[in-house]
Amino acid sequence: MATCVFCDIVAGRSPSSVVFKDALCWAFMDIQPVNAGHVLVIPTRHVPSLVELDEETGAYLFQVAQRVAKALRHSGLRCEGVNLFLADGQAAGQEVFHVHLHVLPRYRGDGFGLKFGPEYHLLPARAELDEIAAQIRSAL
Amino acid sequence: MATCVFCDIVAGRSPSSVVFKDALCWAFMDIQPVNAGHVLVIPTRHVPSLVELDEETGAYLFQVAQRVAKALRHSGLRCEGVNLFLADGQAAGQEVFHVHLHVLPRYRGDGFGLKFGPEYHLLPARAELDEIAAQIRSAL
Repeated sequence: MATCVFCDIVAGRSPSSVVFKDALCWAFMDIQPVNAGHVLVIPTRHVPSLVELDEETGAYLFQVAQRVAKALRHSGLRCEGVNLFLADGQAAGQEVFHVHLHVLPRYRGDGFGLKFGPEYHLLPARAELDEIAAQIRSAL
Repeated sequence: MATCVFCDIVAGRSPSSVVFKDALCWAFMDIQPVNAGHVLVIPTRHVPSLVELDEETGAYLFQVAQRVAKALRHSGLRCEGVNLFLADGQAAGQEVFHVHLHVLPRYRGDGFGLKFGPEYHLLPARAELDEIAAQIRSAL
């Protein structure tokens, strides 16, 4: 297995600022935070992608992210809102190929946000949405 | 209770293109998709914010999102990657105050992405990250 920066953290080979850890999940500070308090929640075990992540662990990561989100709001850090974000695959912006769920404290005017492609404001017809939904349902 | 557009969908008062539904969770097409195949996963019951969402339902929403993400990759729709995104609170970009987890199919050059504030590239010292982690831990 190639070196994984998150596995290095879990193994104690790299430093980290840990918020929570147990056998299934670690939560620690992102070293390049969007805002102060930016936490990454990861499976302890090396799992490169969402497809390879068992659902029990996925569910648990989300529960830990919920707890971190709540803690951020009570931490004294600037936190008027929270974003959860996960990038799965290079085309989605994933850079470290060990699943990680971002928990981002937000406040008005922090400059963070989403940017959209040129077709974002075209609203598809209901028939088109129905067709796409059927395509996804048949793959579920 | 004021009108909620997602409760209207669940109650059948508004149209929707449903991907999945059961007693706990609905998944349907976003009417303003970032890309074709953009799905929202919501609790069936009206829950305005993450803090008010019980952890069992939160875990289940994530599981359903994982299944939808996998289905997108096998649907025939253009999907080279997936983003999960959740906005909790107005400062985080939440517009509909009924919890919803976005599942976004992504492909290279789609124009979607994140934008960052001016301080994003300042890397904090480890001591600062340790201090922030301690603040969050004590609120967990």
